[in-house]
Amino acid sequence: MKTFRICTFACLLLAALWAAVAMTGCATKPAAVSPGDPLPSWNDGAAKQAIVQFVEKTTKEGSPEFVAPAERIAVFDNDGTLWAEQPMYFQALFMLDRIRAMAPEHPEWKAKEPFASLLKGDMKGVLAGGERAVGELMMTTHAGVTSEEFSKIVSDWVATAKHPTTGRLYTEMVYQPMLELLAYLRANGYKTFIVSGGGIEFMRPWAEQVYGIPPEQVIGSTIKTKYELRDGVPTLIRLPEVNFIDDGPGKPVGVQTHIGRRPVAAFGNSDGDLEMLQWTAAGAGPRLCLYVHHTDSDREWAYDRESGIGRLNKGLDEAAAKGWTVVDMKADWNRVFAFETQ
Amino acid sequence: MKTFRICTFACLLLAALWAAVAMTGCATKPAAVSPGDPLPSWNDGAAKQAIVQFVEKTTKEGSPEFVAPAERIAVFDNDGTLWAEQPMYFQALFMLDRIRAMAPEHPEWKAKEPFASLLKGDMKGVLAGGERAVGELMMTTHAGVTSEEFSKIVSDWVATAKHPTTGRLYTEMVYQPMLELLAYLRANGYKTFIVSGGGIEFMRPWAEQVYGIPPEQVIGSTIKTKYELRDGVPTLIRLPEVNFIDDGPGKPVGVQTHIGRRPVAAFGNSDGDLEMLQWTAAGAGPRLCLYVHHTDSDREWAYDRESGIGRLNKGLDEAAAKGWTVVDMKADWNRVFAFETQ
Repeated sequence: MKTFRICTFACLLLAALWAAVAMTGCATKPAAVSPGDPLPSWNDGAAKQAIVQFVEKTTKEGSPEFVAPAERIAVFDNDGTLWAEQPMYFQALFMLDRIRAMAPEHPEWKAKEPFASLLKGDMKGVLAGGERAVGELMMTTHAGVTSEEFSKIVSDWVATAKHPTTGRLYTEMVYQPMLELLAYLRANGYKTFIVSGGGIEFMRPWAEQVYGIPPEQVIGSTIKTKYELRDGVPTLIRLPEVNFIDDGPGKPVGVQTHIGRRPVAAFGNSDGDLEMLQWTAAGAGPRLCLYVHHTDSDREWAYDRESGIGRLNKGLDEAAAKGWTVVDMKADWNRVFAFETQ
Repeated sequence: MKTFRICTFACLLLAALWAAVAMTGCATKPAAVSPGDPLPSWNDGAAKQAIVQFVEKTTKEGSPEFVAPAERIAVFDNDGTLWAEQPMYFQALFMLDRIRAMAPEHPEWKAKEPFASLLKGDMKGVLAGGERAVGELMMTTHAGVTSEEFSKIVSDWVATAKHPTTGRLYTEMVYQPMLELLAYLRANGYKTFIVSGGGIEFMRPWAEQVYGIPPEQVIGSTIKTKYELRDGVPTLIRLPEVNFIDDGPGKPVGVQTHIGRRPVAAFGNSDGDLEMLQWTAAGAGPRLCLYVHHTDSDREWAYDRESGIGRLNKGLDEAAAKGWTVVDMKADWNRVFAFETQ
């Protein structure tokens, strides 16, 4: 069975078992904020300068690097770039919560793997079933309902579910500096898109409210969907079959399919974003390719080259070789989350 | 072999062989145009009234049928709705022209079907090869190049190729009333999308200039695309394999995948648009579902219930049953093409 980001999910479920990441509520002292600064959560430094210089030169009429408004396409990875992704992708946490929520209607799961192990909290037992087991959990929780039903399920979860270590709503765990960056780009005529390995229909129900990005600018992985009349009512049914994986080399393909132009700015945090940054960088004219580097174990998490969620290994080397911007979260951001005490 | 709209292409290639449609350059007398009328090519009548009333009630603050700007999604079929589609889909004419243009580099085609028959103008011989032959022509002309190369091929063709009966550029064969409708909707905060059975990359190179619709708002059929580094250069290669057919029941699926919201207005001309209109109509609140009915054999073509390109049979019945707007091209449009003498 082809499954939905199976390998990654196996990793992240393992990570969930053994992760013991401490979060502290304290923030480093914010830098002095200039009045009218569109990026107040960004400390002055190379990263902030690179962003501001790029925006200024590409939007100044008559500049040799001016980019026509229609071409101002900026693409953002989501997990680890716009919101956190530890101790596992939030969509995986949704999946686990959803299995628990569905369990009362499925008494048979008590004797059926991988559900039985999951409901007992035995993640090792779940993982013993391999990719097939994780794929079954994924499809059980993401397919078999209409698109509208799934949207409501996600909306209800996002409105109430809490992150396992911070106790915050997931939509509070978005990066304040990146929200400022999205708004700054849009204020300068850039059209902002999400290009994520996560499920397209998992992000759309809340992306507009949280990021200001409408559903038609959200690109992600998809399962197959079928149109049918159910008792005469037009319906879109989500089928338990992978359609497209918008990750790694899939990202430039997703960008081409949905946008049809090469972005001029791309933002990611992992090797899964590398091809999207390569594709962006290879266009003619000014480009901004930026990696968010998770370096802050106090306010967030610190991770990069080790295998696991959000691995940034090849990407760090390529960024160094090509002069892409690398954001040091600890040094470059005076605030990570909006909920931090200042 | 799964092919790209094979059945339809077989029909239209047949149609090309035997079609003998006369076009006249004369237009009916235009109606008096009111100053400031956003739809001057539309005669006063039920269709124009339905459009104007829909736009006015959905954009008037405080109206019980007000539609928030973010929800103002309007979807348009292309072939037969925004531009003509006779004597065959223009993309099929592109395919035939392309085979002829590629022939000098392929001397082996002189002895290889379906190319040999096509190059001799023997369409009956081409069709003798069935769906497989048509699929081979399609993939030969649409795959095996990069996305950028294909875009240039299409742009060059559109800039020079002439329609077989009118002698006009294909981009001149767009419907003036529909251009006015697109502009009118956009002026009222509607976001306009193309949702076509035609190839997404066949439409994007010219849709922005001709319709004012940017590539990211063009939805269509796709073949698979692969990202790879060619001599270190990031490249998207078009593969000879169907990915998605955006026609019939595929249209609501394409809408959901690309837009992620249900449209409030949908425009089509054939049974291939029926499911898109059904999906649009089934939403809560005000809706505008409109069929362009080809009734003008003088200025354009007259066709509906007979099998063939742009067949409108079930759709006519459903439009009547549900009270959808049906545009009678002959009666409702005082001008079909911009090039008509007035």
